[in-house]
Amino acid sequence: MLDQIRIVMVNTTHSGNIGAAARAMKNMGLSRLWLVDPIASVDDEAIARAAGAADLLEQVTIVATLEEAIADCGLVVGTSARNRHLPWPLMTPRQCGERARAMVGSDMPVALVFGRESSGLTNDELHLCHAHVHIPSNEEYSSLNVAQAIQVLCYEMRLALVENDVVTGPWGVEWDHPPASHAEIDGMIRQFEQTLLDIGFLNPNTPKHLVGRLRRLYQRALPDKTEINILRGVLGTVQQLAARQVGVSSDKGESD
Amino acid sequence: MLDQIRIVMVNTTHSGNIGAAARAMKNMGLSRLWLVDPIASVDDEAIARAAGAADLLEQVTIVATLEEAIADCGLVVGTSARNRHLPWPLMTPRQCGERARAMVGSDMPVALVFGRESSGLTNDELHLCHAHVHIPSNEEYSSLNVAQAIQVLCYEMRLALVENDVVTGPWGVEWDHPPASHAEIDGMIRQFEQTLLDIGFLNPNTPKHLVGRLRRLYQRALPDKTEINILRGVLGTVQQLAARQVGVSSDKGESD
Repeated sequence: MLDQIRIVMVNTTHSGNIGAAARAMKNMGLSRLWLVDPIASVDDEAIARAAGAADLLEQVTIVATLEEAIADCGLVVGTSARNRHLPWPLMTPRQCGERARAMVGSDMPVALVFGRESSGLTNDELHLCHAHVHIPSNEEYSSLNVAQAIQVLCYEMRLALVENDVVTGPWGVEWDHPPASHAEIDGMIRQFEQTLLDIGFLNPNTPKHLVGRLRRLYQRALPDKTEINILRGVLGTVQQLAARQVGVSSDKGESD
Repeated sequence: MLDQIRIVMVNTTHSGNIGAAARAMKNMGLSRLWLVDPIASVDDEAIARAAGAADLLEQVTIVATLEEAIADCGLVVGTSARNRHLPWPLMTPRQCGERARAMVGSDMPVALVFGRESSGLTNDELHLCHAHVHIPSNEEYSSLNVAQAIQVLCYEMRLALVENDVVTGPWGVEWDHPPASHAEIDGMIRQFEQTLLDIGFLNPNTPKHLVGRLRRLYQRALPDKTEINILRGVLGTVQQLAARQVGVSSDKGESD
């Protein structure tokens, strides 16, 4: 699906940007790079900045005009820094990803068009596009480096076309131990409370706001079984320590 | 709100990346760039690549260690290319934006930490983070240029903090105490570790996987200042208890 996305760079001046664009594309799983009338060439600087994406540069397509680069495309979206004189359909990068996804069934290429480092795309070039995309940016300094703009769009393309919303586990990653049951956590908290009494930290006559705070802390951490075992092991050792103390004084009262 | 986001670059080798990072930041409305033990300097190459963001480079903060860069932060997220041996809470860049938005009311900085061009962040550096963020990428070539990675994260920060509504707190509700800083949590964990040695639970000669698990548990719980105070009070009382014991035997070894 990402093969359907064609990145088109118009009139690029700096070869480093071509290389950096290739890397950004390959990092996101894209591969089709087209250069329209480039001023820079695919030189050593471009290859160096491409790093592990030099293969994309070998497959680059170079044409003389923007019309040639987009003729066979089903959707053409041009990057626009600001509103020109005639309002044109405008999307966010996220919406652009959704529109690209909607094109998957057509098997026609989707072109994302990027302009010159100095001045972006001309009005005529923008009018060749079905729609424009504007990357949300600082009004005081909205001009992104072209390879950075390509990075953001390629990232949104990947999210829309490849990445799922499936999350593994409450912390976003597969965990190494199973979660503790509620009863197991509760058992640890009760042992914690008993330990606080044993060491004289808690005064049995005062309200138990403190234990409530501890319960809240540990419950929201969603402990796994090993973490509970560790904590109960520590508490057990402390309780043994306290049991050996004869007439331990309550130095520290409950603090809320 | 975007002023609250601190971009931290560790041990950067290429000055061009520092400049490109500054530009990406300013394009998205961010301004706080910190360099930890940089190998590159803020030279002409950096200034050239920063383009209209050279002012950010003038205000850059340079420190020797990552701890210094994050001590006062309420949330520290490290970029991670892959799962290391101990699973750690993991977010997408989008979720990272949402978590940052949830920190707005706290007025504490949110640090996004980026590693070396060649090797990313070390395990120790990753373990200092509350959570990790992984940019969805091509499994065959997942290594983004560091300035490009910064671009993607800054873009998501802008979407979450400027283009959206504000959410109250990381737990979906307005909290009753301010979050503990990273240094405060770290101090508690170090006292926890010392306490485990004092009571004979930890054997100083065996590996510290256990402490890593405890660090992971407490960091992901995002404790507030009161919770840290409670825990430190408890630990202090236990340490006093242990100090009164003469020749306490190590009944319980370390369990992993």
